[in-house]
Amino acid sequence: MNFKDLRINGQRLKSTIEELAKIGGTPGGGMHRLSLTDADKKARDLLVQWMREIQLEISIDEMGNIFGKKRGGKDDLPLVLSGSHLDTQPFGGRFDGILGVTGALEALRVLRENRMETRRTVAMVNWTDEEGTRFAPAMLGSGVWTGKFDRDWAYSRPDVQGIKFGEELERIGYRGQAPARNWPVHAYFEYHIEQGPVLEKIGKRIGVPKGILGIIWYDVWVEGKANQAGPTPMDARNDALVAAAEMVLKLNKLPGKMGGDMVTTVGEIHNSPNSRNIIPDRVRFTVDIRSWDDGLKKKAAEELEKEFAGISRRRGCPVRMEVIWDIPHTVFDPNLAQRVEKTARQLGYSGHSMVSGAGHDAAYVNQVAPTAMIFVPSMGGRSHVEVENTSWEDCEAGANVLLHCLLRSANE
Amino acid sequence: MNFKDLRINGQRLKSTIEELAKIGGTPGGGMHRLSLTDADKKARDLLVQWMREIQLEISIDEMGNIFGKKRGGKDDLPLVLSGSHLDTQPFGGRFDGILGVTGALEALRVLRENRMETRRTVAMVNWTDEEGTRFAPAMLGSGVWTGKFDRDWAYSRPDVQGIKFGEELERIGYRGQAPARNWPVHAYFEYHIEQGPVLEKIGKRIGVPKGILGIIWYDVWVEGKANQAGPTPMDARNDALVAAAEMVLKLNKLPGKMGGDMVTTVGEIHNSPNSRNIIPDRVRFTVDIRSWDDGLKKKAAEELEKEFAGISRRRGCPVRMEVIWDIPHTVFDPNLAQRVEKTARQLGYSGHSMVSGAGHDAAYVNQVAPTAMIFVPSMGGRSHVEVENTSWEDCEAGANVLLHCLLRSANE
Repeated sequence: MNFKDLRINGQRLKSTIEELAKIGGTPGGGMHRLSLTDADKKARDLLVQWMREIQLEISIDEMGNIFGKKRGGKDDLPLVLSGSHLDTQPFGGRFDGILGVTGALEALRVLRENRMETRRTVAMVNWTDEEGTRFAPAMLGSGVWTGKFDRDWAYSRPDVQGIKFGEELERIGYRGQAPARNWPVHAYFEYHIEQGPVLEKIGKRIGVPKGILGIIWYDVWVEGKANQAGPTPMDARNDALVAAAEMVLKLNKLPGKMGGDMVTTVGEIHNSPNSRNIIPDRVRFTVDIRSWDDGLKKKAAEELEKEFAGISRRRGCPVRMEVIWDIPHTVFDPNLAQRVEKTARQLGYSGHSMVSGAGHDAAYVNQVAPTAMIFVPSMGGRSHVEVENTSWEDCEAGANVLLHCLLRSANE
Repeated sequence: MNFKDLRINGQRLKSTIEELAKIGGTPGGGMHRLSLTDADKKARDLLVQWMREIQLEISIDEMGNIFGKKRGGKDDLPLVLSGSHLDTQPFGGRFDGILGVTGALEALRVLRENRMETRRTVAMVNWTDEEGTRFAPAMLGSGVWTGKFDRDWAYSRPDVQGIKFGEELERIGYRGQAPARNWPVHAYFEYHIEQGPVLEKIGKRIGVPKGILGIIWYDVWVEGKANQAGPTPMDARNDALVAAAEMVLKLNKLPGKMGGDMVTTVGEIHNSPNSRNIIPDRVRFTVDIRSWDDGLKKKAAEELEKEFAGISRRRGCPVRMEVIWDIPHTVFDPNLAQRVEKTARQLGYSGHSMVSGAGHDAAYVNQVAPTAMIFVPSMGGRSHVEVENTSWEDCEAGANVLLHCLLRSANE
């Protein structure tokens, strides 16, 4: 068979995803498979079994990242890599991350069953703790592998019960021997659902992200004065929740004011003492600002700090803002992105150049190797929720684009 | 000694309050003595011991309300009653409720040690579960005693762990034999801290509430659509927290719009899934509206429902509002209120006619017997917080007013 006639097996990809969805599946049809839990271990075991079935050379590194290689003719050349993650949000969906791991597995299955030899080695990967829901920050596995984080620091990260990342990695038997240190990679492709509404809205099948938005995260604390709700006149109040509500609305209006493709979100808020008849005295909330334009993001952050200080003064509610994460936008390799776009076109799929609003392991890998991503539509733009969905046709299409991108890069 | 020269012992009142503050005291100088806990039992035991020391006739009713009587010459006449509650908020203060119980105890001690006989019986009371923090709603003890609530319904009220009021009452040994049913009361006085800033601000010592504000409580649910924060454009969002924030601000502006002495508060808010990078899809919050003017309160509630519906429509976030409590304002007995004011003046204390913003057991007792309250200043207007404070001079002054009001009513 000629390289260009190869196609992945959509039915097999579907049943692979459905098998994985049984491990940690929720009654609502979603997934609850937090990093390094028993469910994560079970999903890893199944993945490793599937990788063995197609004779991949498996290696597990100190961070639990699982690699599987199919050797090429020139296996001393830098290899071609693809993957994503099997861990999920607490009530996440069946596709986020999982599609990228199973898509790479399916591509390797097709190469194996068609006895396709490549010049370079083709490898797949399952990165540890992409979601960061149990062990923050996100992308610990790829973060250590690319030198962004220190291994022992990662081991020390606690979950909410104080259990350490390193202990849990050991417990589930996935603390491997290989150093969690990157080696030369010729090209990295990450296949993923869009997690947004754009592709569906414009009716395109393959998204080609030119990169990932820059992100700044704040933790914000607002202080008020607790008092009995009844006897405290309105003009004698310092209500931390009212001040915080004004800040939430201010942040929500920021993208309209700044222009560009900026998005802003308050996802988390904690109110204290949170009692019906007591005026709130402490509110903590998060701020998430994302933009492709790092300058605009900086300007927005400055504007926000000024606005919050003004609200704080006016309402007599001291505010403290702490930047806990600030990364510039990621620009993927233009040649690889072009390869994704061209491959989609040649396979007869409509493509669309776009940006990724969400962070991905690809952002870290991009710092050490040429990287690109392949997106397929998310129904209703929904993601990180149980109803997250992508049509099986789209899953198949994206996996075919991945297969041919891998082949092209592997035969360079 | 002549009646009119009697004074309470300020030093003894202080040390009584300080003794009680040791039971369930917090490191921050406040109180954590929730209803029917071991701490509540210990405080009750101490109170009963003190009541025995002055030979009060003690009776405990089915709701755990503790009564202590000093018989008068005409003990077939309706008696004169005074008291409040020993339970506290989770991080409440040393005075709320406690001052009213210890003030009544101190008045009876003075009568006993001066061998003062009264015409009518003088009695004190410690009402069960005034705060309603552990077992909602508030004022369960006085509520059943006045026929507002059914006894068995009260027994069935659960705390957050599902433990029932009735079981806990039994466990701490305060489920008494006497029926929790009101008997004729000639006059009820409740001595209490103001829990607001008014008296301190205008420099008056004794507050004379003409009644208690009417209250309406809502639970409000707002629904949005959860999505990944990054890839979801601002105009494709239904952010439940942004909608709720707008509602919080709208409620906060309502008193200014309606006029009058209205106060409005959102004390409690719960956000879901409450994750930094997920757009909130469910927010629940409370609404508390209080006004002396029942018509204005009704108008405000209607206005609020209209405004919330508008925000809901505009943001595509369905809202559900449920009225969970709606009581008209309470008007205390004008003759008794006048007695408080006159007594304060005669004792040389400055008085001020006002309203109570907070609910009290007095609101229920007022439905079955002539009732009045006596307020003293709260430092900084702070209450339901650990730093809640009232000067010992003010505590003494209020207790003297109580003593003489009791004497006057008891000798009618």
